Amino acid sequence: MSKRPQSARQTLALNIIRLRKERGWTQEVLADECGLHRTYVGDIERCARNVSIDNIERFANALSVEIWILLKPHRA
Amino acid sequence: MSKRPQSARQTLALNIIRLRKERGWTQEVLADECGLHRTYVGDIERCARNVSIDNIERFANALSVEIWILLKPHRA
Repeated sequence: MSKRPQSARQTLALNIIRLRKERGWTQEVLADECGLHRTYVGDIERCARNVSIDNIERFANALSVEIWILLKPHRA
Repeated sequence: MSKRPQSARQTLALNIIRLRKERGWTQEVLADECGLHRTYVGDIERCARNVSIDNIERFANALSVEIWILLKPHRA
């Protein structure tokens, strides 16, 4: 794994992908749980959008984790 | 203190205010360190804006903390 520090977008994307897959959810299921569009979820997972705090909170609520968990690099 | 869960905007605002004051910085100093406008910093501290992840990262860099620290409720 690279030693280069992750950007916040990368950390968020990796955590969302990991937690989504742990739940066996597709992007579409996660999008439904968040009340967001599937393509928007795909954009977030590709670090392609400057997501807002309100939408990060929606992901946290949908995934049943505290919001800061989504921004903290995961140590496997 | 209220038992009601804080919104993500509130947690962010309280952490930014606390860390800024610990450093003895005005909103203007923090804004300069972030490369943002002073009124924007005031808006964030009043929970009046849906701040983006890139700008939360700017606050974290300016305050020399990891980004997730800004989203985690502070236990005094």
